[in-house]
Amino acid sequence: MLRRVSEDGSDAVVVSHRVRVGYGDTDQGGVVHHAVYLRWLEEARVEYLRARGVDYRAVELDERLGLPVVEARLRYRKPARFDDVLDVETRVGRLSRATVRFDYVVRRGDERLVDAQVTLACVQLDAQRLCSVPAAIRVACS
Amino acid sequence: MLRRVSEDGSDAVVVSHRVRVGYGDTDQGGVVHHAVYLRWLEEARVEYLRARGVDYRAVELDERLGLPVVEARLRYRKPARFDDVLDVETRVGRLSRATVRFDYVVRRGDERLVDAQVTLACVQLDAQRLCSVPAAIRVACS
Amino acid sequence: MLRRVSEDGSDAVVVSHRVRVGYGDTDQGGVVHHAVYLRWLEEARVEYLRARGVDYRAVELDERLGLPVVEARLRYRKPARFDDVLDVETRVGRLSRATVRFDYVVRRGDERLVDAQVTLACVQLDAQRLCSVPAAIRVACS
Amino acid sequence: MLRRVSEDGSDAVVVSHRVRVGYGDTDQGGVVHHAVYLRWLEEARVEYLRARGVDYRAVELDERLGLPVVEARLRYRKPARFDDVLDVETRVGRLSRATVRFDYVVRRGDERLVDAQVTLACVQLDAQRLCSVPAAIRVACS
Repeated sequence: MLRRVSEDGSDAVVVSHRVRVGYGDTDQGGVVHHAVYLRWLEEARVEYLRARGVDYRAVELDERLGLPVVEARLRYRKPARFDDVLDVETRVGRLSRATVRFDYVVRRGDERLVDAQVTLACVQLDAQRLCSVPAAIRVACS
Repeated sequence: MLRRVSEDGSDAVVVSHRVRVGYGDTDQGGVVHHAVYLRWLEEARVEYLRARGVDYRAVELDERLGLPVVEARLRYRKPARFDDVLDVETRVGRLSRATVRFDYVVRRGDERLVDAQVTLACVQLDAQRLCSVPAAIRVACS
Repeated sequence: MLRRVSEDGSDAVVVSHRVRVGYGDTDQGGVVHHAVYLRWLEEARVEYLRARGVDYRAVELDERLGLPVVEARLRYRKPARFDDVLDVETRVGRLSRATVRFDYVVRRGDERLVDAQVTLACVQLDAQRLCSVPAAIRVACS
Repeated sequence: MLRRVSEDGSDAVVVSHRVRVGYGDTDQGGVVHHAVYLRWLEEARVEYLRARGVDYRAVELDERLGLPVVEARLRYRKPARFDDVLDVETRVGRLSRATVRFDYVVRRGDERLVDAQVTLACVQLDAQRLCSVPAAIRVACS
């Protein structure tokens, strides 16, 4: 984990999650398949929350709240390859009443490979209804 | 769907399920990644049951029974490639009180690419306990 | 395949690709995992090209050109569930010298589940260099 | 990494690889989808080789040799769940002229979740022909 001032001078907390590219993450183009990044962003999001004190598993189990993805944007700048070690940097880009947008940069050392934004909505799992982001997550995302 | 006497002279029902290899199903070796077949076998299993009158979605939802995989064996003979059209032939290889074993051959035209056996156990989803395969599935698998 | 005037009154060709949700496409939230759609959009793109006379496999093998994804945007409106039959409607949204943007709607009957845009860049596979979209693909995408 | 005498008293080297279950690794049954383990076994295999001095990426790139999977057997004993931390223990079970069989146990703490065996064949990537396992890998697997 890493807390630091982000590039744009804002003081958002950035949490870094390291992954290594598996053979099955590649496609016949010889690079990581573009869908795989959504899985890594998801892992990075769970680690971001954990680093900030929120256990997402418990949120679902105990509070019966979920954070499904409602929007995703990815910009693929450079390809990653098998066995590369990548760092997924995560920060909260925007927090509204019922949604949180996570902003990501996937890096390989100094190279910026992928930029992404993923917006989640807070829902009551049993009623399948939108609800306000609860205080604990709100604090973790501030 | 296809019903016919199988190769070994037994009169097992064989149901055939056609898939086309996607780009993302390949890896940098230029062939289908070996884990992808388990997904196709699963699809073929659901289609086998449907062809024989069992709606697996309803089994889970209405009867609260599930058929998790307890064992899988795959023999990869020849690789499949992007955009290939494959036929997954499914039959029931063995039916016991609480388990069903599905036997598969994945073909590309005349070529036999993969042989597999997948054993499922019948469980009560709420109690997470083994139970007898219910009559409807038993009939479908005979 | 389906050719028709699209919703907005433009005369873009729309090609429809049908998929059925597999068990492994779901996650513990009980709905299709958000990353799975990128795989279906990719399949739909290959079928779009095929319906319009372009064999993407041959483009890579014979012309040594590829169309990697450089940008993806997905808006998840409603969840899909196991065993649902979905139609992925594909049209070309924008064609520039070196890129093509495909626009998608994923439907379940009358319901609109996901909207997406995926932009591909044309690259020479051996040189790994951007190049102009070749005439055959350009025609197919017009 | 961990070197130790294995359970059965043999002196095989065991290398342990830790993974954490992602949300997308689960299915609507609320547990890890059975196909996901093949991906983790593959990662564990690459780490086994690295721990023993073999860089599998370099084997493919420099020596133009590959190790495709020719057989896989998995026995699923207990399910893993989202956010679980798992240890994949890998050892070489059998080494023949042209094949290597890796034997795995996937554990969650003291619980044994999955046993598996995956057999790889050594092939010349350009000729797509079986060949002898090269000395460096042979030593690493002894």
